[in-house]
Amino acid sequence: MGSEGSYTALGLKVWKAQVDRADKLFGTLSSEQVLQEIAPGRNRLLYLWGHLTAIHDAMLPLLGMGKRLYPELDVAFVINPDKSQTVTPSHEEIRRAWITVNGELSKGFENMSPSDWLQRHSAVSEEEFGTDPSRNRFSILLSRTNHLSYHLGQAVLGLK
Amino acid sequence: MGSEGSYTALGLKVWKAQVDRADKLFGTLSSEQVLQEIAPGRNRLLYLWGHLTAIHDAMLPLLGMGKRLYPELDVAFVINPDKSQTVTPSHEEIRRAWITVNGELSKGFENMSPSDWLQRHSAVSEEEFGTDPSRNRFSILLSRTNHLSYHLGQAVLGLK
Repeated sequence: MGSEGSYTALGLKVWKAQVDRADKLFGTLSSEQVLQEIAPGRNRLLYLWGHLTAIHDAMLPLLGMGKRLYPELDVAFVINPDKSQTVTPSHEEIRRAWITVNGELSKGFENMSPSDWLQRHSAVSEEEFGTDPSRNRFSILLSRTNHLSYHLGQAVLGLK
Repeated sequence: MGSEGSYTALGLKVWKAQVDRADKLFGTLSSEQVLQEIAPGRNRLLYLWGHLTAIHDAMLPLLGMGKRLYPELDVAFVINPDKSQTVTPSHEEIRRAWITVNGELSKGFENMSPSDWLQRHSAVSEEEFGTDPSRNRFSILLSRTNHLSYHLGQAVLGLK
């Protein structure tokens, strides 16, 4: 492994640091706290947590790690806004899905070589990838890390 | 340039995408809007913008691009919380500093080779860097991009 490994190791380190922050932030909330809004009339913490879980779940097929584990999360946490559904997954279901999905990603990351990260992700065709090779797996890692940071910045506002 | 350049180009692409979002978000605010809080009792948009400008300004020496241009921003936007100072830089001063600092960074990035990104950043000693070579310039780029995303997630809440 040449110096390429240094860049991907850094990408993974920053990813892991944000997932750890999210674990601490969401993982310690009571079932009352998780229903608090981040600001008056805005998303509840549970919605953000479910949203992040769904987006991370969708990384599995994007990175060639198999099928999604919880595609049903999209209705409650991606396609529709918070407080629009009569029935949504419970706090406990989200907690378990969050842990499972990030564990699967972590296992998959261990098996990826630096050059694997430069392969196309599954949402881009071979033809499109030929035109723009930056649409690769490493770009998914970096953009999803930033997506997580974006919502962590919001979630901390709901803590008190 | 080998495949290393692919990783650093992606890091820069994600950085630029977030800076562009911030440009659009903050750059179009009126002088009244910039004084809005992101949530009741929380930071004002101007504070977030000043804070991001100060942190980006501090990247110049960290990445070996010369001295800070606006070290005086730290008192108003880093060391002290919002609404604690009687005099703070104006909306117009922040706008100009934001544009200047990100322009300087952008110029500096153009001169960096992939291997330059793996050099130590200036806040870590040679000895510490020997022990942990992940404390390099690329880690600064990735972590500051996430820092920007974190506060962008908050800033959008202040828009209406």
